[in-house]
Amino acid sequence: MRIYFSGAIAGGRDDLAVYQHIVKRLQTTGIEVPSAHVADPAVLMHESEVSPREVYERDIRWVKESDAMIAEVSTPSLGVGYEVGHALRIGKPVLCLYRRGLFVSKMITGNPALTVAAYADSSELDAHLDAFVGSLVTCPHG
Amino acid sequence: MRIYFSGAIAGGRDDLAVYQHIVKRLQTTGIEVPSAHVADPAVLMHESEVSPREVYERDIRWVKESDAMIAEVSTPSLGVGYEVGHALRIGKPVLCLYRRGLFVSKMITGNPALTVAAYADSSELDAHLDAFVGSLVTCPHG
Repeated sequence: MRIYFSGAIAGGRDDLAVYQHIVKRLQTTGIEVPSAHVADPAVLMHESEVSPREVYERDIRWVKESDAMIAEVSTPSLGVGYEVGHALRIGKPVLCLYRRGLFVSKMITGNPALTVAAYADSSELDAHLDAFVGSLVTCPHG
Repeated sequence: MRIYFSGAIAGGRDDLAVYQHIVKRLQTTGIEVPSAHVADPAVLMHESEVSPREVYERDIRWVKESDAMIAEVSTPSLGVGYEVGHALRIGKPVLCLYRRGLFVSKMITGNPALTVAAYADSSELDAHLDAFVGSLVTCPHG
């Protein structure tokens, strides 16, 4: 299974440790994460070497080639918002995760096409991840 | 003509003065801006009285009913990113504006379907707004 992970890059890197936790948990269960570089502390340096058009086309292709998307939306991000909308557009199941208590855009929390879940700690985060991945296995997309 | 304006709400209100400038300039040339409340300093208070689902459905309807979208993307925002993607999906022309020198997501700057423009001051901002509105008048959408 392949899951695209979406997290803030230009928007801010305050949640890097959460991104790393999510990507590692997915990968250790055998899931391929094409966008694992989002959880790399050096992503800004690496991405600066790639043109905007190349990044755009690569990410759009990775979303298309994935079975689903998991987005961590605690840090406001233009790119994450765009990617969530794009994934829905092409029919991918999307899970949006955020730290309980944060004020998240109502375009996300009020969106009936999304699975949106809040977490207070890593065990709650893991439970949401496992439930979402489990739902994909039970009812494979496409 | 009707243009949907998109700016950060949950993402942060640091660019409120720019949002007000854009909305005022559009309105003074007779353009209807259904989402003018984004430029209202009290928007967070007003929007707190509306359920997430109602906000989502209202904004999606407003985008649909508009001829185009103008998004100010200097402040990273999940909702703005989502709305930009949604507007493109339903075939609306979209202008994304940001203060020159900021690092903006490559999902925006590398997106060939968008008009993206940087500004250093209000006269440059106005020139971008006028050119975009002029392009809609010359080649009306739909």
